[in-house]
Amino acid sequence: MIGEKIKNLIQQNESKIVLVVMDGVGDISGNDGKTALEQARTPALDRLAAVSELGLTIPVDIGITPGSGPAHISLFGYDPVQHEVGRGVLEALGIGLTLEKENLAARANFATRTPDGIITDRRAGRIPTEENERLCAILGKNIKKIKDVEVNVYPGKEHRFVVVFKGKELFGNLYDADPQEAGKKEKLVQAADKKSERAAAVANEFIKEVNRVIADEYPANTCLLRGMANPPEIEKFGDLYGLKSCAIATYPMYKGLSRLVGMDIKEGLVSIEDEVKELEKSYKEYDFFYIHVKKTDSYGEDGKLEEKIAVIEEFDSCLEKITELNPEVLCITADHSTPAAMKSHSWHPCPFLIKSRFCRFTGEEGFSEKECASGSLGTFMAKDAMQLMLAHAGRLKKFGA
Amino acid sequence: MIGEKIKNLIQQNESKIVLVVMDGVGDISGNDGKTALEQARTPALDRLAAVSELGLTIPVDIGITPGSGPAHISLFGYDPVQHEVGRGVLEALGIGLTLEKENLAARANFATRTPDGIITDRRAGRIPTEENERLCAILGKNIKKIKDVEVNVYPGKEHRFVVVFKGKELFGNLYDADPQEAGKKEKLVQAADKKSERAAAVANEFIKEVNRVIADEYPANTCLLRGMANPPEIEKFGDLYGLKSCAIATYPMYKGLSRLVGMDIKEGLVSIEDEVKELEKSYKEYDFFYIHVKKTDSYGEDGKLEEKIAVIEEFDSCLEKITELNPEVLCITADHSTPAAMKSHSWHPCPFLIKSRFCRFTGEEGFSEKECASGSLGTFMAKDAMQLMLAHAGRLKKFGA
Repeated sequence: MIGEKIKNLIQQNESKIVLVVMDGVGDISGNDGKTALEQARTPALDRLAAVSELGLTIPVDIGITPGSGPAHISLFGYDPVQHEVGRGVLEALGIGLTLEKENLAARANFATRTPDGIITDRRAGRIPTEENERLCAILGKNIKKIKDVEVNVYPGKEHRFVVVFKGKELFGNLYDADPQEAGKKEKLVQAADKKSERAAAVANEFIKEVNRVIADEYPANTCLLRGMANPPEIEKFGDLYGLKSCAIATYPMYKGLSRLVGMDIKEGLVSIEDEVKELEKSYKEYDFFYIHVKKTDSYGEDGKLEEKIAVIEEFDSCLEKITELNPEVLCITADHSTPAAMKSHSWHPCPFLIKSRFCRFTGEEGFSEKECASGSLGTFMAKDAMQLMLAHAGRLKKFGA
Repeated sequence: MIGEKIKNLIQQNESKIVLVVMDGVGDISGNDGKTALEQARTPALDRLAAVSELGLTIPVDIGITPGSGPAHISLFGYDPVQHEVGRGVLEALGIGLTLEKENLAARANFATRTPDGIITDRRAGRIPTEENERLCAILGKNIKKIKDVEVNVYPGKEHRFVVVFKGKELFGNLYDADPQEAGKKEKLVQAADKKSERAAAVANEFIKEVNRVIADEYPANTCLLRGMANPPEIEKFGDLYGLKSCAIATYPMYKGLSRLVGMDIKEGLVSIEDEVKELEKSYKEYDFFYIHVKKTDSYGEDGKLEEKIAVIEEFDSCLEKITELNPEVLCITADHSTPAAMKSHSWHPCPFLIKSRFCRFTGEEGFSEKECASGSLGTFMAKDAMQLMLAHAGRLKKFGA
């Protein structure tokens, strides 16, 4: 509704906003009828919930299961459908790369082709990661530039690698170079609009070079290029909200997503305890802190409910260190749900808690999906959560008179 | 969603709709953990709530604190971001003026300037209101017209006054003539688009005339013009909803906002009791009644929680007179929240109650933020409340077959 007009309402003050994202913490009732948050012993969260506003957030849209990209873009206050983060870009962020505007990132597969161009295996028999690393080194040595475009190749796991093209006017509205099933003829990259034709030509030249350089490395003697994309053009957090912000995260993907919106990134963190210590250390320096708790999601993906519960309890034991800093606004939520019983992300709304001096609390006795469903905030779009944080921080002027 | 298409769904009947706006009644938990509505003794409201539908409304958008203008525009069923009410217009409405299309209203400050055009005090030392009235009389006598445009000047409090320009094609997309801080050179009005250039020229000629006429009235020897605007182009209530409507309010601003959407205005009312008597008196004559209770907001602004509670109880004691009329639809809500602990408007959603023969009630035991948060209506945008009132009044046909 208010959209971009929020910029006209921003006012500065000394407040601190701490946003904790417990990745995938939302759950379903599962076989035993209770969610991870319901089962976890969380005395600190429960005390906090009683004097906070609770609600549920919808990451992208009702019934839509988001990836980490859109789920975070949304929490950072951007429309996740309008600002799509391409898969190539996410893959690059996931291995810790920094992308500039007009860089073009692709996720690539090593694959197998016959001499007449039939793709016989889209994953080259899932070659071992070491083999992948060896092949990427060969490509890196032999394909440094295509025309005036710099080419960088980064190995991933098994048959997966990342290609980043750096040059001018490399627009990423491109169709995948992937026949989708084995036994079909190889596909070239095709531009989906006029201005992306240059990028398509460069990408196809790259594939041709790969075919030449690793011709004798059967089964991995070609590559597929997928999810080619430029980093999304997103107005920086600082420009939009006037917030000096930093990301406190352990995994590259989340640091990368934060970098996209212009946050400073803290490095070298491994545990939740590390993250809270970093918060204490950087507390004076920033207005806004994004803290990412990864393992609630990881264990959800693995179907390990007990371990997911343990991570929630671990966070709960660190929570007092955060509340002792007494930030003007403390917000605890998830980017999406990852029910252990589903072993995947899901569309279920995310528990949301916000604490400030300006709360209308309903005296809920804990922090779980159930209390959040009856909380004073109702169910709302995650992309509007930033507006709520800014309001509670006293950082928004009145709209109209 | 349905937007303007609502017009196609309107059908006429004999139903009466009564909308009571308890200005700013929404509150936060504050120091004592309870809101004004939670603390007030409201037997009549509680009885009503048990057989009504309850919910919470968002005036403009999540986290956005609205002024009275957008908050009311929204309750009257219009998009408050699309139909912004300029500050000059609100100021004019606030002192009881009626504005026509293409009238241009500005809020003005008496200010102090040096002979070479430096603004040394943007408020002319906050001159007394009597002095302001004297100066406005001088301006009124000496500046009646600029070109073919009629000029009217109305004193406000201290240094503030209102200017209304009446003529053709005076378009108000204008930048303020206000250097924003003392010690800077005076600023002229500038047009923000081509078609507003005529209005800019007229406004600048006005400032020049003011400088001439009150040159010797130091410190108030010039004026700043701010928030210049035309009344918003809004489709009238009658045309949009087919409702013959009237506003029962005590304060000029709310009468003015009602006049903007085409309501009849009842004058000479001071208390809630007066307002209810007016409702009884006019009951046969209209389909829709907007009743405005001002003092919940005034005491909220003053931080006087006890007095705010007393106004709620005063309204409660009058409620039976309204329910005895047995309107087909009775809706009780706020335009925005004005928590006493914040001494200002806030972004918190507004308690909302609707009573008709067609309710799905959940048996809530009272009318407060808490019961509304768990009510059957959930949390929704205030601009959709009119649709709900029309539906409960049987005034909307089926959409589609």
